[in-house]
Amino acid sequence: MDFLSELTGTLLAQMQKPTLAFLIGGMLLAAMSSRLELPEPVYKLVVMLLLLKVGMSAGISVREAELVALAVPGILAVIAGVSIVLIGRMTLVRLRGVAEMDGMATAGLFGAVSASTLAAGMAMLDDAGIAYEGFIGAIYPFMDVAALLTAIIMARMAAERRAARSDVSQGGVAVIGSGGAGGGPAIDWALIRSILVDTIRSPAISALLLGLGLGLFARPDSVFESFYEPLFRGLLSILMLMMGFEAWNRLGEMRRVAHVYVFYGLLAPLIHGLIGLGMGLVAHELTGFSLGGVVLMAVMAASSSDISGPPTLRGALPEANPSAYIATSTGLGTPAAILSIPLWVALAEAFIGG
Amino acid sequence: MDFLSELTGTLLAQMQKPTLAFLIGGMLLAAMSSRLELPEPVYKLVVMLLLLKVGMSAGISVREAELVALAVPGILAVIAGVSIVLIGRMTLVRLRGVAEMDGMATAGLFGAVSASTLAAGMAMLDDAGIAYEGFIGAIYPFMDVAALLTAIIMARMAAERRAARSDVSQGGVAVIGSGGAGGGPAIDWALIRSILVDTIRSPAISALLLGLGLGLFARPDSVFESFYEPLFRGLLSILMLMMGFEAWNRLGEMRRVAHVYVFYGLLAPLIHGLIGLGMGLVAHELTGFSLGGVVLMAVMAASSSDISGPPTLRGALPEANPSAYIATSTGLGTPAAILSIPLWVALAEAFIGG
Amino acid sequence: MDFLSELTGTLLAQMQKPTLAFLIGGMLLAAMSSRLELPEPVYKLVVMLLLLKVGMSAGISVREAELVALAVPGILAVIAGVSIVLIGRMTLVRLRGVAEMDGMATAGLFGAVSASTLAAGMAMLDDAGIAYEGFIGAIYPFMDVAALLTAIIMARMAAERRAARSDVSQGGVAVIGSGGAGGGPAIDWALIRSILVDTIRSPAISALLLGLGLGLFARPDSVFESFYEPLFRGLLSILMLMMGFEAWNRLGEMRRVAHVYVFYGLLAPLIHGLIGLGMGLVAHELTGFSLGGVVLMAVMAASSSDISGPPTLRGALPEANPSAYIATSTGLGTPAAILSIPLWVALAEAFIGG
Repeated sequence: MDFLSELTGTLLAQMQKPTLAFLIGGMLLAAMSSRLELPEPVYKLVVMLLLLKVGMSAGISVREAELVALAVPGILAVIAGVSIVLIGRMTLVRLRGVAEMDGMATAGLFGAVSASTLAAGMAMLDDAGIAYEGFIGAIYPFMDVAALLTAIIMARMAAERRAARSDVSQGGVAVIGSGGAGGGPAIDWALIRSILVDTIRSPAISALLLGLGLGLFARPDSVFESFYEPLFRGLLSILMLMMGFEAWNRLGEMRRVAHVYVFYGLLAPLIHGLIGLGMGLVAHELTGFSLGGVVLMAVMAASSSDISGPPTLRGALPEANPSAYIATSTGLGTPAAILSIPLWVALAEAFIGG
Repeated sequence: MDFLSELTGTLLAQMQKPTLAFLIGGMLLAAMSSRLELPEPVYKLVVMLLLLKVGMSAGISVREAELVALAVPGILAVIAGVSIVLIGRMTLVRLRGVAEMDGMATAGLFGAVSASTLAAGMAMLDDAGIAYEGFIGAIYPFMDVAALLTAIIMARMAAERRAARSDVSQGGVAVIGSGGAGGGPAIDWALIRSILVDTIRSPAISALLLGLGLGLFARPDSVFESFYEPLFRGLLSILMLMMGFEAWNRLGEMRRVAHVYVFYGLLAPLIHGLIGLGMGLVAHELTGFSLGGVVLMAVMAASSSDISGPPTLRGALPEANPSAYIATSTGLGTPAAILSIPLWVALAEAFIGG
Repeated sequence: MDFLSELTGTLLAQMQKPTLAFLIGGMLLAAMSSRLELPEPVYKLVVMLLLLKVGMSAGISVREAELVALAVPGILAVIAGVSIVLIGRMTLVRLRGVAEMDGMATAGLFGAVSASTLAAGMAMLDDAGIAYEGFIGAIYPFMDVAALLTAIIMARMAAERRAARSDVSQGGVAVIGSGGAGGGPAIDWALIRSILVDTIRSPAISALLLGLGLGLFARPDSVFESFYEPLFRGLLSILMLMMGFEAWNRLGEMRRVAHVYVFYGLLAPLIHGLIGLGMGLVAHELTGFSLGGVVLMAVMAASSSDISGPPTLRGALPEANPSAYIATSTGLGTPAAILSIPLWVALAEAFIGG
């Protein structure tokens, strides 16, 4: 009872914090059909500056971090990303009305990470005065790439198996995988390589890696402290506004896809967040990963990719219907993930006793 | 004599202040046909950030304001907005060469409020260290909506009367107003509702209301103080530059409309400003409205809408010629209003003795 | 040996400084075909803000500067700009595979000044705590306009001479220059005037002159200190990123032009920088021009115009192939000039003994 009322209090107070308030404000504007619009170039600039900031701050921290303290949450992030996709494969993809390709793409997107949701989590921890490892930004790509790779490879292998089966039934000779012969599909290294390259070239991961590189190998501290760090919250408030707006407008598209996507879009962030929270707590036990770090691991797992994921999936799985996975992720998954951030703070505090 | 030399001194000093200096700089650039251009997306971003700031700061202040202190200037603002349109109906619309629709649209635009002119007034008061009520931003929509509603309803009713008359003369049956029958045109509630909805959905009023809502119901203070407040003057300087540029380029269009528009565009801001100053002085007597508040009431009345008004009028009065009302407002009204701000400061100080 | 190791140390340390690190980061992103892009409107805004800042800061300084201290580096800057074009005329234009028009346009572009390179130089001196004259920004247009005028006039006169010769060989009557008659080509005042007007109207020079005017005749100090000055480094980092990106992508175009352009693009910045350094040292002897001022004179001379020059040349010399001069300047000249800034710092310190 005491825990519940405390949780409710925390949730209500968080809704008034700038990050969530701007997200909800954007949804309200879209709901009343406001003509306020933030043009695409501004969106691209804001995202780039936020990711450079997250990357640089991670890079600067990695310089001083111990390898073990870094590797343990990194490996756990990979496990979280892969698990989320496997769970999606076993639940969403088996449901009625869900095409296999659409389901795998959606599971991949929900396993991948949203940079803006991560940034929102960081801003809310800063607001609350909760410390977290500076290198968290460097863990993001591990979970992100692991999930996208798993989803795309499983979807491609399933498609080839189907194609092989229909070839056999037509009396043809089955050729599974690009270099595969009998026994089962071989690992398609060319596919893995092309997905990796495509992910690295995506605007979000490029900006993050650039920031990481600058933080690691250069000394960007002066411009970081005079520009990227002070503008962080303000730019994030603009981004939240746009994401709320976009989320509301995407909801309309949900009508055209199976109803199960609605349930997945709303429930998956909570279940995935719990997986991330669990991984974070394991890291806390093993290497003393901080309370803030545990929260951000949950936030990353709960989030679904909104910038880099969609184009990567569109390129790798052209048969999947973007209305299904993008609308579910942007219209439901992202606001659900952002709005659930206070929950992870409350739960992490309950478990670790911050 | 002493008053005049003091006034001249104030005016000259104000021309050097950033706000006016950037406006004049923009006009000079346009006059020398510079190819410097600030792209549309940047303009939209700057306007949105300024209006969010004005709205948030008003919302934060309204939280602590007394209802009477707020309601009195609000009602006086409505009176000012309506009066300005009625004066335009009795002067501009009756002049030779002015089509009734064009004249009413122009009067509506000059009664509505320019957010950028208001922001310029605030920055100039800040510069001069003159205090004003924080909730002023919340009064803006009262004057703005009152003026637009009055102008559009009067123009529509006049058009229906004309149509009815020509129907009668052709032997048809007169149907006045949507639900009206004989006696005179009934109030068209559907029209009023559609104008209100359209105004609220306009980018400027949306952004202002969002800011107000955030200030009232959320706690955006941290991002307000770290981002919106410090960037305010800089963003305003960019906007002033663009408005000076735009004003000069619009002047060319004036050649295509009746000469009386030139007189109206230059004189109306002064006369309307005096009306606003009067309303402000009444509020000063009644509720102790501050000297800065009186100045800003005059600034709002003197200004003509440049962001939200034009599209609203274009939608509601498609028969009116945009060259007439937009060129008069943006080319003459807005620079005249901004350049006259120091005059309202000087007059308010003379009356109240700040 | 000691000097060399010190030079290498300075160079390596400078590569890690934000300015160069972001430039190199942009090149790496382009090299790995990242899809990160900074839209055109953002680029225009960033350039405008940087040039307004450089101009305002120069204007504010000019208010207090002595005429002689200003005129001497100004005249030396003109000499440097003209010399660079004459050297280009005597070397690049005479080489095999170089069309006369293309060579003159390239020489003009390398004589003109890059605002972003100058800004990078200023930021690096600020970083190193090396003082320089505030009015340097006011010297920029002298070198820039002198070089562009010289190149365009020489190219136009050569073209007319060629046309006259072919006219003569066809039995026609030679008419040289617009008002010229026999003896040699007369000075074409109309051409000079049109180049001057075109340069002044170019976005870069417009923004710089506006800033200068604001600094000289207005009091923009409050907005300068609260907005333009603090954002300078951050905006510069964004610009450097874009310039590195652009430089790498332009390199591909170099394949289509003669190989000598590669040598010119890499060597010219070094030789021109030495000329600028020499001029700066003369000013140092004559008027006590500061060490930082000497460095910036070298930086201006080493740089090649990237914003205002190309469109001016395209308008004035339509026969020249933009692939040749823009690719050489943007792809090689600009990165070479920016990367050589630490060299001018080291050399100026060696000569003056800062």
